[in-house]
Amino acid sequence: METYSFKNDYSEGAHPQILQALVDHNLQQESGYGYDSFTTTAKELIQQKLQREADIHFVVGGTQANLLVISSFLRPHQSVIAADSGHIAVHETGAIEATGHKVNTVVTTDGKLTPALIQTVLDSHNDEHMVQPKMVYISNSTEVGSIYLRQELEDLYTFCQKNHLLLFIDGARLSSALTAKKNDVTLADIANLCDAFYIGGTKNGLLLGEAIVILNKDYATDFKYFIKQKGAMLAKGRVLGIQFTELFKADLFFDLGQHANTMAERLTNGLQAKGYSFLTDPSSNQLFPILPHAVIERLAHDFDFFVWQKIDEQYSAIRLVTSWATAEEKVNAFIEQLF
Amino acid sequence: METYSFKNDYSEGAHPQILQALVDHNLQQESGYGYDSFTTTAKELIQQKLQREADIHFVVGGTQANLLVISSFLRPHQSVIAADSGHIAVHETGAIEATGHKVNTVVTTDGKLTPALIQTVLDSHNDEHMVQPKMVYISNSTEVGSIYLRQELEDLYTFCQKNHLLLFIDGARLSSALTAKKNDVTLADIANLCDAFYIGGTKNGLLLGEAIVILNKDYATDFKYFIKQKGAMLAKGRVLGIQFTELFKADLFFDLGQHANTMAERLTNGLQAKGYSFLTDPSSNQLFPILPHAVIERLAHDFDFFVWQKIDEQYSAIRLVTSWATAEEKVNAFIEQLF
Amino acid sequence: METYSFKNDYSEGAHPQILQALVDHNLQQESGYGYDSFTTTAKELIQQKLQREADIHFVVGGTQANLLVISSFLRPHQSVIAADSGHIAVHETGAIEATGHKVNTVVTTDGKLTPALIQTVLDSHNDEHMVQPKMVYISNSTEVGSIYLRQELEDLYTFCQKNHLLLFIDGARLSSALTAKKNDVTLADIANLCDAFYIGGTKNGLLLGEAIVILNKDYATDFKYFIKQKGAMLAKGRVLGIQFTELFKADLFFDLGQHANTMAERLTNGLQAKGYSFLTDPSSNQLFPILPHAVIERLAHDFDFFVWQKIDEQYSAIRLVTSWATAEEKVNAFIEQLF
Amino acid sequence: METYSFKNDYSEGAHPQILQALVDHNLQQESGYGYDSFTTTAKELIQQKLQREADIHFVVGGTQANLLVISSFLRPHQSVIAADSGHIAVHETGAIEATGHKVNTVVTTDGKLTPALIQTVLDSHNDEHMVQPKMVYISNSTEVGSIYLRQELEDLYTFCQKNHLLLFIDGARLSSALTAKKNDVTLADIANLCDAFYIGGTKNGLLLGEAIVILNKDYATDFKYFIKQKGAMLAKGRVLGIQFTELFKADLFFDLGQHANTMAERLTNGLQAKGYSFLTDPSSNQLFPILPHAVIERLAHDFDFFVWQKIDEQYSAIRLVTSWATAEEKVNAFIEQLF
Repeated sequence: METYSFKNDYSEGAHPQILQALVDHNLQQESGYGYDSFTTTAKELIQQKLQREADIHFVVGGTQANLLVISSFLRPHQSVIAADSGHIAVHETGAIEATGHKVNTVVTTDGKLTPALIQTVLDSHNDEHMVQPKMVYISNSTEVGSIYLRQELEDLYTFCQKNHLLLFIDGARLSSALTAKKNDVTLADIANLCDAFYIGGTKNGLLLGEAIVILNKDYATDFKYFIKQKGAMLAKGRVLGIQFTELFKADLFFDLGQHANTMAERLTNGLQAKGYSFLTDPSSNQLFPILPHAVIERLAHDFDFFVWQKIDEQYSAIRLVTSWATAEEKVNAFIEQLF
Repeated sequence: METYSFKNDYSEGAHPQILQALVDHNLQQESGYGYDSFTTTAKELIQQKLQREADIHFVVGGTQANLLVISSFLRPHQSVIAADSGHIAVHETGAIEATGHKVNTVVTTDGKLTPALIQTVLDSHNDEHMVQPKMVYISNSTEVGSIYLRQELEDLYTFCQKNHLLLFIDGARLSSALTAKKNDVTLADIANLCDAFYIGGTKNGLLLGEAIVILNKDYATDFKYFIKQKGAMLAKGRVLGIQFTELFKADLFFDLGQHANTMAERLTNGLQAKGYSFLTDPSSNQLFPILPHAVIERLAHDFDFFVWQKIDEQYSAIRLVTSWATAEEKVNAFIEQLF
Repeated sequence: METYSFKNDYSEGAHPQILQALVDHNLQQESGYGYDSFTTTAKELIQQKLQREADIHFVVGGTQANLLVISSFLRPHQSVIAADSGHIAVHETGAIEATGHKVNTVVTTDGKLTPALIQTVLDSHNDEHMVQPKMVYISNSTEVGSIYLRQELEDLYTFCQKNHLLLFIDGARLSSALTAKKNDVTLADIANLCDAFYIGGTKNGLLLGEAIVILNKDYATDFKYFIKQKGAMLAKGRVLGIQFTELFKADLFFDLGQHANTMAERLTNGLQAKGYSFLTDPSSNQLFPILPHAVIERLAHDFDFFVWQKIDEQYSAIRLVTSWATAEEKVNAFIEQLF
Repeated sequence: METYSFKNDYSEGAHPQILQALVDHNLQQESGYGYDSFTTTAKELIQQKLQREADIHFVVGGTQANLLVISSFLRPHQSVIAADSGHIAVHETGAIEATGHKVNTVVTTDGKLTPALIQTVLDSHNDEHMVQPKMVYISNSTEVGSIYLRQELEDLYTFCQKNHLLLFIDGARLSSALTAKKNDVTLADIANLCDAFYIGGTKNGLLLGEAIVILNKDYATDFKYFIKQKGAMLAKGRVLGIQFTELFKADLFFDLGQHANTMAERLTNGLQAKGYSFLTDPSSNQLFPILPHAVIERLAHDFDFFVWQKIDEQYSAIRLVTSWATAEEKVNAFIEQLF
């Protein structure tokens, strides 16, 4: 028997409905570079969900979305503040620095930024011998699976606006955040609580694709120039337009996130039933259970996952990721192997 | 009746066989970031066609391929030499300059570089007050539809090696070049006549995708770091791996290029039969016929194309592009409307 | 006898009065990084000459001034338009491209840009596939010794403002331009006819130093951050403050430029008296006389100069540069050797 | 009475002997851009002190030296490791990031890096999703006044070589380090224990100037191109050549460092005699005594210094910096005011 992977949420191709849409519209001639009719439709559908105007652009990946927004919003001497676990700080091979900007990091326990944490950066940057912090970058859900509640986002955005900081939300796993049990914000709320964010598609059932949403009009000008300059503009923009149309023409975006969360909850319940605890509070589709090494070794015969962090001589935390494609019987099989 | 587009070679989605392959392998779990089995197979298949070892990487677009190769091969003070019609010099929104490098351009009549033209740049760059030319960039086929013959490529590469210049070939339309009537080089020849090139997929039947081929081992190290840093690494590398496997497991790559050329030849014959001449010698899937304005106006009712350049008060050159998807009946209809 | 150099205007150290000022104030304790009292005084003196407010910063060299202004004024997708003979286009080792920006060049005969020449660049840059021209860079005097008259500058600035282009003047040799016989603009005029310019000190009697003058308030914010980031901020800002105070506390800036021009005129008269013509109209402190090779060979025994351009088998143009330090007896000796 | 400044080591102009040398050679004609005879002599004198060959270049400031060496040594995906108190990490306005490179910081107590600290960075950077650490940056003396002993430098360099890391030493205050009481390395030792370093002149009696010394021949090629591209090349290279000739033609470099240290020791003795302790062990020309707020307030009437860090409600650490120019009577006056 082959192993089943809980390593990430991008092990399969696309949700079949997404792929079928690509097949259905395949031979229709369309304009290139994002001027196709599908891209137009997809933008309209997203704006309807946002219940407001917004400048929307589709690109193929998260690092690309991050570097595009950050490098186009900041002037050369400005920096972006991130959690030390933030994707741009750790896992993007210096993509932000490669565009000339420093990432100021702060240590967090749960992957989430707060006004107090941001203030520490502001306090230590006060003249022209240092970079000028100008943007705050958060991920929802975060890289350790936690999510932001409404009050937290409101506090952050109020603080940012008061301090002339731009707020940018990395939504690579936004579908899981917005359909999490504890979540109390809507997609429309998100759009009113930041200057820009992106809606992750790659980790939510698309072959590839993220939707950048720019709310702050001061920074929306000429964004297509940046997309082209960074090599992020597709000749066949339809590939993204068709997929995002399918994702948002009904509620597929939320349904897929919900499935991932449901599978995660089932895993959580199974693990808790056996008495295991978690490195971080289980909230979305990333779980960090702490297991005995013997259990981990046994599970590894049939399942793929990352061993995240050694806790002590007997225990380690592993990372389990569920997705739109996670099979319920595999979740059950995993739980059955716990002891 | 809707207009039919001869504007470019990326108006449709993917060749049905490509799309079917994506459907066939859709739910198979695979590793991310280019470590999937399809990517491995695609690399092997391409190496077989090249009849040699090579470092191969798949990315989504041509500008991305160009900026990755050029910015990773050059040191900060070095420049790349291109024809003034070269894609990097004109239509990439300064993507090369955005990575810190100057593009030295030379004026050409047919879009092709020669040792003599390159020598003029070398002659005028001789100390540390000027950039140091280190790479030569050519496109095959070129942006004006011409192709390089074997002797021309040999002369260029010999000249480059003698002058410590790297030779990089933009192959966005390599399929059309290699299946052109006048062509006398193979894919394996190309691999022996440059330091790096890329094989265009987007303009030859893929949803998206280009294969970067690095031959010069001095520059192959750590290339995946650059791909990630520039936001060009797909979480689902399988999307490119599956498509390129399909393109090269038999001769689809060449068949599609051949179809585009056959359609272009049919157009050429029809135009020549009416006595029309061309701005540049018809060689591949891009044609630049010179037509009376009245004819252009009539054709524009049923067909989309670019009006390329005004010749005089009565004539303009238009650009017609054929592709793997061009319908023969549309070509016939176009010819019938000539007068 | 040693040869005497007419190669450039930076062969000697500083005007003795400048050096004496450095000696006089040497042991006075001052704040660092441009907050010293001399820098404050120098800024006030320059503002008096400009008869208006301006944001003024002192840096050590021309390439530094150019890259600071251009990279801080432009957004990442924007380019600067320059004459093909412009210093930034030729002799700065790609300094502008190293900050990420393309330089669009236009061919000129006299080193000077005009609205019509700039319009050709605007006409060919009209969508997001190309860089967005946003700034015009001119030099006064130009790299071939010509100068801009008032009407020309007014036409340029009006055109720039109408087309949302910023105008930046490289004044490495501004002292010679403003004291040229044909000149009809003042330093105060210059400040009203562009968005930024710099006043050259290195080529006009300082050890080193250029004064960047920013007139457009939209771009004056945070400029000290850029100076620091590019390594252009001196710990001992006093070194520039003292020198510029001396240059502008009376009319030394103009007197030194005038001397250079007077020496150039004397050379011009001597050359014309022998019947020789010039490659470009003699206007400022750079002359390009066309001389027989035999004369050039004879002169080279006693004088250093660049052989600029071969005209034909018998004649070449040489470049002669005079400066604040040029000795009248050397000019006379040069003329005497003509035949 | 005016206050006397212990704020830094660049409050005065140049040592009189340096200034006199500039006066003495002022009107001698010389080649530009570092090809003058003084620059040649200065390089030879430094090589004699180093007792080996080296590629030497003179620039005007420390940030400039740092960004030149780091950006020319690293490939785009590589990073530099620094102490969190390192100058490049804190006080250069993101100059390194502006050239595209991440600075990996590690927390230190005494401003010094060790193999163990560096290893923590290597351990957490192991694939292409993260930057590739390639260089180690240390300062000697450090930003908190500590110095590296021979064994420490040997351990560091051995570790770096074993791990394919380049070692670069920021010597802005190298004169003070090499003449410190505890120091056991020579300038020649330094040159054998790193790949590159720079010798600070600005903080040791020059008007301005640092000497970059490249030992690793793999990285010495084309360095003048980088200097020019970053705006760091002086037309009048003589300004640096003359000063460094004066600094190294005898032992002025060491004498000035010694004076700064002697003054620092006198301050240290005076402070210790009153029973005060220090934030970091007094080693070179930067001292961080911990004083009661009442004492600090009294001293501030007559002396300028930075209040560095609040210790508790009664005490703060201040920073005192001595230099070649520090007057003994002012040191005595400072000590007399302690209570």
